Amino acid sequence: MDEFSFIRNYLAPLAGSGSFSLGDDIALLDNKHDYGFSTDTMVENVHFLPNIKPKSLALRLISTATSDLIAKALTPKFYSLNLTLGKKYDKAWLAEFASGLKEAQQYYNMSLLGGDTTANANDIVLSATVFGVIKEKVILRSGAFIGDDIWVTRNIGDSFLGLEIAKKNLIVKSDYLLKKYLEPLCLNNLQDLLLKHATAALDISDGLIQDLKHLCNSSNCGANIEYNAIPLSKIAKEILNNYPKYKEKIINSGDDYEVLFTANHAAKEDILLFSKKNQIKITHIGKIIKDKDINLFDENNSLINITNTGFKHFALS
Amino acid sequence: MDEFSFIRNYLAPLAGSGSFSLGDDIALLDNKHDYGFSTDTMVENVHFLPNIKPKSLALRLISTATSDLIAKALTPKFYSLNLTLGKKYDKAWLAEFASGLKEAQQYYNMSLLGGDTTANANDIVLSATVFGVIKEKVILRSGAFIGDDIWVTRNIGDSFLGLEIAKKNLIVKSDYLLKKYLEPLCLNNLQDLLLKHATAALDISDGLIQDLKHLCNSSNCGANIEYNAIPLSKIAKEILNNYPKYKEKIINSGDDYEVLFTANHAAKEDILLFSKKNQIKITHIGKIIKDKDINLFDENNSLINITNTGFKHFALS
Repeated sequence: MDEFSFIRNYLAPLAGSGSFSLGDDIALLDNKHDYGFSTDTMVENVHFLPNIKPKSLALRLISTATSDLIAKALTPKFYSLNLTLGKKYDKAWLAEFASGLKEAQQYYNMSLLGGDTTANANDIVLSATVFGVIKEKVILRSGAFIGDDIWVTRNIGDSFLGLEIAKKNLIVKSDYLLKKYLEPLCLNNLQDLLLKHATAALDISDGLIQDLKHLCNSSNCGANIEYNAIPLSKIAKEILNNYPKYKEKIINSGDDYEVLFTANHAAKEDILLFSKKNQIKITHIGKIIKDKDINLFDENNSLINITNTGFKHFALS
Repeated sequence: MDEFSFIRNYLAPLAGSGSFSLGDDIALLDNKHDYGFSTDTMVENVHFLPNIKPKSLALRLISTATSDLIAKALTPKFYSLNLTLGKKYDKAWLAEFASGLKEAQQYYNMSLLGGDTTANANDIVLSATVFGVIKEKVILRSGAFIGDDIWVTRNIGDSFLGLEIAKKNLIVKSDYLLKKYLEPLCLNNLQDLLLKHATAALDISDGLIQDLKHLCNSSNCGANIEYNAIPLSKIAKEILNNYPKYKEKIINSGDDYEVLFTANHAAKEDILLFSKKNQIKITHIGKIIKDKDINLFDENNSLINITNTGFKHFALS
């Protein structure tokens, strides 16, 4: 049983009204909808490598949980931590971890509100719960309309390529890619744009295709995507030219922490203006369609077969 | 470095205003103080035995986190879960775990609001964050006055003796004690009493003496406790008669999940009336004093030396 089946079959029936969390990565605290929160757990050897520096780990932990709130147009405000650490972590490790938390909370303009700290003999397990203030509304996964444009922020695949470098599967020198993997920082100035134009949105954490599927499933629609429109960094383009096997992998791998959103076609010029004015790369990659398929087209307008379906965090026998 | 030093030295400086959590097991979401939350992490082999039944584990997890809210007079309303499970857990295990969650949320009258589920090759690590509504005020640790009576609910030590039975350190047949350890259920009808009379309160999770120290440190006072007044169940009394080594252990062990509170002496009759009316054992065990010591007296009014200082969840080198 995978994560999604467990949630659908066993946890969803326990959910109260007002919870979008089990399907939408976010939970709303009350009917007044003042606050929402998102929570993420990271496990050593599953979500991060054991040799990660404590400062990077802290930045990565906070960004992972904050990413959901940002994609839904909330303002991050507080966070709480559940830290299960190992006996091997000494004072210097803890001090550096705390300095990473400080950097992250300054970047996102929030503060620590609570938590629990325990020891574990084996792997490190860290959870961060980030609380955000709701301004006007929450952008859900379910609001996409047929004909909407599909947009993504910044670039896809940099984090995965950074992971490949960290694992020494890819021998390329790039501090930029490594940092995109080790210390992702979400965009923290998209709120106005999303509130104005996004019909549906989510953060890309399981992989572009997998998260697009989540959005389409919730919105009861499909999507046509042009592969060549998917935004890549200069170094990612070079790597894909040299190692074509990554062409498919980068759209099926997790940890991008970019925002995928849909908007009415009439908003296109305004979105591009926002992009230019704020110097944030925002790219139109496709269209929402009625048929419930994800179709990926190459430069000749031929359908590309998608075999992989994203990073599964959870695989129970 | 232990849990308390790590929190004090590294996490406390990151806390925002309005957070009582780092010192008071609870965090308040905003200045309006509509909501507070408490979060607890449980690690296999640290906080529970690997052979625990999944239903018991779920009940224990939810009660552990809810206990803090109850002691502070909040009404539990929602909870979120961060579950790091192992590959050995199959469909039947998950179904039984979910049935324990259902039983717990019905008992506490709350519902699931969100969470994250991941896999871990080694130990299970579970976190529950429980959100409660604040009615009038929050009872903090810091409000005890000199001369206040010290009260505890139900009995002390049952859970620890249940753990000793589960670990086969104690050969006594008692389903009652085992259940107090495996499936603790906090009192869920103390709110009115606490709001009316408690000057300070907290739940007993680290051990009676350790938690009394927390309360006294926060309230800038000390306490005189009569050992013989500490409420024990019938079976616990028998065990202490047969195995005197447990006399000290039960007041220094965790997991009671009872409420320790202080109240003005004038409230005594009213508290006893509430106790009788609601058939909840509530026992007066001592007095708050000015000197910052915890003094434990035996039946001859002689001081008992306290050597142990409670269950430490966290011990870093």
